[in-house]
Order: sequence, then C-alpha cells, then structure tokens
Amino acid sequence: MSSPNPTPKRIKPQVLSGFRDQLPREMLLRRVLIERFRAIFESHGFEPIDTPTLEHLNILTGKAGENEKLMYAFRDHGDREVGMRYDLTIPLARFVAQHESDLPLPFKRYHIAPVWRAEKAQRGRLREFYQCDADIVGSSSITSDAEAITMVGELLVAAGLPQAKIWISHRRLLEAIARLVGIPDELAVGVYRSVDKLDKIGPVGVLAELERSGVSSEIGSKLVDLVSTKDEAKPLLDRLERDLQGDETGLKAVTDLAELFDALSALAQSTAPFSLDLALARGLDYYTGIVYEATVDEPKVGSVSGGGRYDDLIATFTGRSIPANGLSMGIERLIEVVNEFGLIDAPATVCDAIVIYGDGSLAYAGSLARDLRRSGLNVDLSIASRRGFGDQLKYASRRSIPIAIIVGEAERDGGTVTVKHLDSGDQETIAREDAPGRLTTLNAAAPSARS
Amino acid sequence: MSSPNPTPKRIKPQVLSGFRDQLPREMLLRRVLIERFRAIFESHGFEPIDTPTLEHLNILTGKAGENEKLMYAFRDHGDREVGMRYDLTIPLARFVAQHESDLPLPFKRYHIAPVWRAEKAQRGRLREFYQCDADIVGSSSITSDAEAITMVGELLVAAGLPQAKIWISHRRLLEAIARLVGIPDELAVGVYRSVDKLDKIGPVGVLAELERSGVSSEIGSKLVDLVSTKDEAKPLLDRLERDLQGDETGLKAVTDLAELFDALSALAQSTAPFSLDLALARGLDYYTGIVYEATVDEPKVGSVSGGGRYDDLIATFTGRSIPANGLSMGIERLIEVVNEFGLIDAPATVCDAIVIYGDGSLAYAGSLARDLRRSGLNVDLSIASRRGFGDQLKYASRRSIPIAIIVGEAERDGGTVTVKHLDSGDQETIAREDAPGRLTTLNAAAPSARS
Repeated sequence: MSSPNPTPKRIKPQVLSGFRDQLPREMLLRRVLIERFRAIFESHGFEPIDTPTLEHLNILTGKAGENEKLMYAFRDHGDREVGMRYDLTIPLARFVAQHESDLPLPFKRYHIAPVWRAEKAQRGRLREFYQCDADIVGSSSITSDAEAITMVGELLVAAGLPQAKIWISHRRLLEAIARLVGIPDELAVGVYRSVDKLDKIGPVGVLAELERSGVSSEIGSKLVDLVSTKDEAKPLLDRLERDLQGDETGLKAVTDLAELFDALSALAQSTAPFSLDLALARGLDYYTGIVYEATVDEPKVGSVSGGGRYDDLIATFTGRSIPANGLSMGIERLIEVVNEFGLIDAPATVCDAIVIYGDGSLAYAGSLARDLRRSGLNVDLSIASRRGFGDQLKYASRRSIPIAIIVGEAERDGGTVTVKHLDSGDQETIAREDAPGRLTTLNAAAPSARS
Repeated sequence: MSSPNPTPKRIKPQVLSGFRDQLPREMLLRRVLIERFRAIFESHGFEPIDTPTLEHLNILTGKAGENEKLMYAFRDHGDREVGMRYDLTIPLARFVAQHESDLPLPFKRYHIAPVWRAEKAQRGRLREFYQCDADIVGSSSITSDAEAITMVGELLVAAGLPQAKIWISHRRLLEAIARLVGIPDELAVGVYRSVDKLDKIGPVGVLAELERSGVSSEIGSKLVDLVSTKDEAKPLLDRLERDLQGDETGLKAVTDLAELFDALSALAQSTAPFSLDLALARGLDYYTGIVYEATVDEPKVGSVSGGGRYDDLIATFTGRSIPANGLSMGIERLIEVVNEFGLIDAPATVCDAIVIYGDGSLAYAGSLARDLRRSGLNVDLSIASRRGFGDQLKYASRRSIPIAIIVGEAERDGGTVTVKHLDSGDQETIAREDAPGRLTTLNAAAPSARS
C-alpha cells in the first residue's frame, strides 16, 4: 500500500500571519491555565456559555468602536453580512437579550473562547486569541463589581502573578473631575484618552496632549495634579467628596467607590492589590460606572486584564437597560509570561508511561495497556514494535514520557514486565499483575496533565 | 447611575441560521461528553493540539472534494484568500508538514474543535459544529488502525451508546472486488458511491443506480451479492483470499484486514462491535487503506463516527508520503441523542450551594463563601441581598442549586448558618465553623460539574 503517488505541485505548509498552531506542550500549559481559570469562575458560581463564531454583522458593529475596522467581516453563501466575533461582551449582550426568559437574573456567566481581530502584524500581535470573560448581568449592586474585581485578583494568583496590581476608577468620577477643573463637555472624550496615557507618557506628555486638544495649561495642570494624587482609597475619596459637593453624579460615583472598597474587604482574600487610580479611563465606548485594570510590572507584562460596568450596552438589543458588569482577561500574553518565567508546572506529555514490546507480544502488551488504563493511567502502547527497543526508548524520551514498560520475550514468557525510569535509567522487573499498582504509585509522585 | 439612555434603533438579537448559542445546561452536558472523550484519547497517549480557525485558502482546497463549495472563504484585510477550517484532517496534514522536525513519529494527536460548513439549512443541520478527531501520523502498522478503531468503540461506550456497531472495510479491497466482477476502472468511483448506499436504498436501489452508471445488470448483481455477504470476518476473508488469487493489491488488503481483526482482539475490551462490511466505501477523496464507520440503530441515530487510513494526504504539503490514519467523531448529533435519551448524567449548574444573606451581613457571608470555596466547593454568593430571602430562594431553585446557606441576622449574631435543601425543604442550623465540613459531605453525594 502506501503508494508514493507524488503530488505534482506541493502546497507550502504555513499558517496565516498573526495565527498560530498549538503544539502539544503549548496546549498542555494552556489547558492548565484555562482549567485554573474555569475552576475560579465556577467556584464563584459562574456558569459556562458559548456563542457562535460568526454573527450577523449588525450585531457586532455599532458598539465596537475602533475595533470595527479590525473585524473579519464578509458575505456568506446566503449573501448575508457576517462577522467573526472580536470580543465576548457584545455576543453576551446579544445572548442575554435573546434568551432573557431562560436566564434567572442576576445571570453570572463565564466564557473562554477565541476572538479574532485583524491587528497590524507588528510586535507579534495575534489575530486569533483567547479571551476569558466573566460577567454578571442584571445587578446594579456594587457587590457584583466587587465580585468581578475579586476574581481578577484570584485569576492572577492562579497564573503565578500574585504581585499584580488592580487599578480601580469610576467612569462618572472622571467626568466629574473634568467638570470640576473646568473642562468643557465637548472636550471630555479627548481628555480622557490623554489622561489614560499618564503611565505611558508621563504628566508632561499628557499636558502637551491636553494643550493640543484645546485645554489651557492651567486647567490641564489642575487635572493632571488631581488624577496623579496617590493616596489610600479612603482619604482620597473623602477629599473628592468635599471637592465635588453639589455634583450629584460625581458624589454618587464617590459613594460607589467607597462601597466597592468596603465590599472588596468582605469578599477578597487580601485587599493588598486594589488601588484607586483617578487617571484610569479604559475604553470609553460602553463603560458607565466602576472600571478597573490589572497590571504586572515585575516581570514587565503591562496590562493583563480589565473590566467594568456597562449598564446601557444590552439596551442595544432589548430597548431597555439591563445593568451588567464584568472582567476580561487575555490569555495569550499571560501564557507567554507563564512560559518565560516558568510560573506554572505543566506536564510535557499526557502520557504516564509507554508500553514497548517486540513482535509477537501484541496480545500481552495490549492487555497490559488496557489494565493500566483501567487503573486511571495514560498509557501509550507503542506502535513501532518492528523497531528495536533502543529506538522505542529514544522515541519515549523525545516525548518526555517518564516511564517505559518493557515487554520482551523474557517478560512475556515469564509473566513479568520491566519498568524503566527514563530519567535515571533505573529499572526493575516485576510480576505482570503488580504493574497497575506499581505504576499508580509511581505516577502519584509525578506532575500530571490531569487536574 | 444606570441612566436609561434609550437606544434609538434596537438591533434584533438573533443568531445566524445554522448557528447556535450554548446555554449553561447545554455547555455542562457538552463538557461532560468532551471530557470523557479527552480522557479516552489521553489514556491512549494521544496529545492535544490546536490549529487556527482561518487558513490560507489553498491549504484547505484541493483535497476538500465536495466540501469545497461549503467552505466559508473570503479575502482578509491583506487581500489574502482565506477560509475557515471545514474539518480537522487537512489542518493536521498541514500541521505535520510544517512542524515535522518537532514531532516524534509516530505522532498521536487528538483535536476537539469547531469546524464550519455552509450546509443547506435543512433538517436542522448546523453550520458550526464540533469534531473530535484522533489520528496517528507516521505509522503504516495495522496496529495503529486497530488502536483508532478501538478508541471509536470506547468513545461510544462513554457516550452511553454501547450498542453501536463499527463497520470495517478496506479501500483497496473494494477496488479489487470491483475488478473481480469486471467493472471497468473508469466507472469505479460512481460504483463505490452507489454501493455505499446499500443500507439506505437497498440492493434493488443500488442495482438501478449501477445500471444508470453503465454497469450491466449481470455485473451489478454479482457485485451487490458479493458486498452484501454477511459472515464473520474470518470466513469472509478466507473466501476473498481464494477469490482474489492473482490480485496482489486485493490480497494485501485481505491480509491487512485479517491482521486488523487479530489486533482488535489484542487491543479492544470486546470485539463484539466490529464487523467486516464489504459495502462500506466512505468518502473516497483521500482514503487509501482500512476505512470504518460507526452506526447506532437503536436509538435511530445513524452514522456517528468514521475514519480510515490516508497515506497520501500529507504528501500534498511535504511532497513525500507520510502514512497516517485516524478517526473523526461528530459531537452535535451525539449530544442531541445523549440529551434526548438521558444517556449521561450532567449537572444542571456548576453550583454546589448558594449563600444568601440580608443587608449588613456581607462580611459574614463573604468570609463564609471564601471558606467553602477553599474546601473545594462551588459557591454562589447571592448579589440580590436587597431582595427578601424568599426571592433569593426562588432564584436558587430556578438555577437548580441544590443547597442554600442562609445567613439571617440570627445566624450572623449567633455564629451559625442555616443549611436548606432546596428539593426537600429540610433545613438545619449548624455552627459557622462546621459549614465547610458539612457541605463537603453533602456535596460528595450529589452529581457534580467537576469530573
């Protein structure tokens, strides 16, 4: 069989720029991380959902803002305009509107899935990447904001980044501060964009940008001073409460934030990572209340997660507001960091052991592999029996399989197996019927692909 | 906050025809099934991989056959022709060619992922659906075919369908049989397509089709008689060995099949489900050796899985043959059946319990929820504290959460909690510090979302 049948023109095997294959080791690390995230979401009672990769294009556009031009959009076979989802929040809003009667509110859901954005191919940016989102729909309680922020902290600890900081602000507070220093409403959007860059371009850079936007240097300085104030949340909020007297919306934002920090004390394991950051603006397209962002400075990772309250988004599909808030965590950058700094122990292979055997021992080896699997072990049964044992052991080493169970003629005829530790080279010959017990014991000590 | 901000034009929330949302209960059932499949693949030493959703279109076309017109294809932002993957086999072939130097052969991988086909929207056919594939690349050993077929049997048992039958044939044997009865080579493709319908349209229907293809009724009858022969594999293969004397390719196929049935005896738990079916042709686009298909008659499910050997496919990308074989299992139809006949116990919610509390008890309730989670329980902390306890209990029931842990003022002040079983209505008040132990015990008895 296996006729050569040479292909006339060979197609070059390559993936699209911005897309990546996941090799087994990468998949196993990714899975460990995703399973940890899933466990955290579920420990908080969040239920999993999924939504289609393709949506009607008009569902995706509108609230996408500057993401819209990055969307993979095309006409399908029925000449409908369709697009690949570019985040998990818009699909959630559509999902809630469509299934509202089946969803007890508050609806807590998480969604771990790929999204697609035709980013410029620079800086190794991916065009297909996983997001992990958790949202609470149907509650305007600050407790629900606190729960999402608490989970961000837990996710980062689970990713091996307990040193992450979570910066918290409030969309309405920023607006109030802008009003306070005398910035006209029509300049507000540009001003927030500039202020958001404080960490990146520093106060001088922000001031220059503000001047270019038409904000006087006096007003700009006042604003930058105010949003740069570093203090504990409590005294800072007290001061803002005094400064914002008479600004109802601003005062409500201050009360929300005070309530949030109280709720974080009640919900979170440790309140150490949470800070008030008046310069934090986040994307402005749909946030309406508390917003937050998690950053890691050491190692230099930058922003790894963000989220906030978006009470008006679902109205796009329902015609009436349903309050909602939630977090989004990008997984690709985290995996890079976890990988680079070895933050998580992930196995190199799913296999606990490989059974290798010579010609004529398939029945013996096959029944052995079956028994080992029945004991809960992952066992590769070699299909290279015509190669010598040395070759098969090399194969096992290349796959990082820790243990080889050798069935030679002597073992087969004597009712035994030889257990060889590939790392040390140590080996022992034991009775065939003792193999499941012995391997289970050995395996309990080793890191495993199974959680 | 939560300003009404009524949206001027409401966008109708709907998914594209042929696409589906997964609600939490559906996701939990799907996950149980997928986790079982994953465990089977890994128990056999198969490693997970993933490939991009989008590929260069020329990678996907060529071997797609009649699937090509069902492919979602478009031009991306860089004016490249791209397509969404429509199966997991072509991407595997590309993957192996691209990463060959990093992959110890034989390379055993599984891939559980969605694929997209613009099927006619009839009969509830989905356009986005999950496939579960497991393949062995780099071995021409019949043992590797036997391992894939063994896994098909195990997957179907895991799906609650132990009554499934697995029909086995060999691409080269069908060709030899066609030659044997005197069918000209140029008619072979049409003939196989007709013969493959034997189960659906019966011998009379196949004969009529064959005649329309230009096969005489005498030759057609001979062929239909031969492929309809029902017997144990062994005597049937013995007979074919006699009939095919002189046909080297045909005899090699007979030897392959004999070796396969021997290997199945060595590898599979039970050989009951495996039958030789000379009428089985499967798609002919790339199979080169042993082929198989799994069907379930009771309940009336039909074909649920298939696979075979495709030794020439990878050459499309490498320019030289790398032998390969594997199985593909569709998940959507299985889930429907599992759901309809209740074949798998899946939880209705991720939650083991919900903590409900009144105003002023957030700190008490929050620390309780934290402790319960630390004991490994999934605990929803109610964020509806401003609603009464009755409302919160109704919410818990709607979500099918089995247990509510009630923190009223009495409990908070007395250092206790009340544990209420939502099904029976039974409740007991216990010391706060005994809650993790008590809940862990209760939970051990209940079905869980965690495997």
